Amino acid sequence: MLRLIGFDGDDTLWRSEDYYREASAQFTALIGRYVDVGDASVQASMLATERRNLKLFGYGAKGMTLSMVETAIAITEGRISAADIHRLVEVGKYVLQHPVELLPGVREAVAAVAERHAVVLITKGDLFHQEKKVMQSGMSDLFQRIEIVSEKDTATYRRVLAEFALEPAQFAMVGNSLRSDIEPVIRLGGWGVHMPYHVTWEHELENGLGEADAPRMLTVQAPADIPAAIAQLSARAAA
Amino acid sequence: MLRLIGFDGDDTLWRSEDYYREASAQFTALIGRYVDVGDASVQASMLATERRNLKLFGYGAKGMTLSMVETAIAITEGRISAADIHRLVEVGKYVLQHPVELLPGVREAVAAVAERHAVVLITKGDLFHQEKKVMQSGMSDLFQRIEIVSEKDTATYRRVLAEFALEPAQFAMVGNSLRSDIEPVIRLGGWGVHMPYHVTWEHELENGLGEADAPRMLTVQAPADIPAAIAQLSARAAA
Repeated sequence: MLRLIGFDGDDTLWRSEDYYREASAQFTALIGRYVDVGDASVQASMLATERRNLKLFGYGAKGMTLSMVETAIAITEGRISAADIHRLVEVGKYVLQHPVELLPGVREAVAAVAERHAVVLITKGDLFHQEKKVMQSGMSDLFQRIEIVSEKDTATYRRVLAEFALEPAQFAMVGNSLRSDIEPVIRLGGWGVHMPYHVTWEHELENGLGEADAPRMLTVQAPADIPAAIAQLSARAAA
Repeated sequence: MLRLIGFDGDDTLWRSEDYYREASAQFTALIGRYVDVGDASVQASMLATERRNLKLFGYGAKGMTLSMVETAIAITEGRISAADIHRLVEVGKYVLQHPVELLPGVREAVAAVAERHAVVLITKGDLFHQEKKVMQSGMSDLFQRIEIVSEKDTATYRRVLAEFALEPAQFAMVGNSLRSDIEPVIRLGGWGVHMPYHVTWEHELENGLGEADAPRMLTVQAPADIPAAIAQLSARAAA
């Protein structure tokens, strides 16, 4: 039987990717005043800087902002004004400060799961920003523990399970990212409830899940469907 | 008796503040080409931006870099060049990438304490950067758990102790900051070993410790003195 259920934060409990998309659109509009952003080499340069900086800065709005500043200077060959760079910093600050908007029905869904299982929040990104979002969500009382991690891979999930002295087969993860929430848990021998979000960062789409993994996961369309999916996986785990 | 010993990371296990000081000196030299950095109003403006941004960005090199960029644009009234802003980003990147240099004798000191007590690392700042430093330090095998936190206050220490099911009186913290490592632990009823670092960020100097707290703490000058200090506090705790 399932003993512990993990919930992802961004785009599972609350809206997040929308804000990054908005920031990205503002960035493109701003540097579009200096260069042709439709140009393939400009897009390639933006992507290359982003990927290089991800390794140095990690996930989150602060790293994204620094990356935008650096990319803008490089792409405009230093022609960008200080005022426009300041606008980019403001774009990043907005991502850090936007209000936390829970997905409809998510509190009720987590509360229903929490009646039958221990639940933990396992969220990735900037520690300070994630803590603020957890606090503002008003949902921290539902979780037995809140784990903010820099990467959601098998090593991370193995560590969390070890802290709870549980086997992977006793654990299911609920989240919007196949790459971060579902695949590593299934690789360890756990279970997954995938709830796609209407937009997903390209980075989170990459995954190596296949036909053979289907019995260990379910896909739901909305938070209201999560409790039934967990019950169904729990029955499979007990079988 | 003491059951758990916590160690701080930055400026307790490895050098850190030196790099921030160096970054700050480079920042001052760079904006000194635009404004009189000796001017009291310029210094007041820099400090005000830093404090305001600390609440938004939290601790760490990424927040410091964004703060430097924003301050430089504000202080120069937008006259700073994109090339110089890029130099500030590079200054910040260097803080994120500097090699981890352990303080002399610190590995041996932690290993000696670990022979008699469970030890944990409790470090504050950017999750991604701190994890990288822990890994590069080659010391993670010595710690039973590594806690990277956004603030070291009584609430944080209370949570860590609850996870270990320990009373504060069974816990001692070793670190260079009276504000973050010693005072909150003593306020809870725990013990502290203060090891001053040769430079300390002004922010970490603020504390409300007094005469009455003296019996619950010891001050050491170097890592080699830590095991004896822990033994002495452990004897006091057992008395």
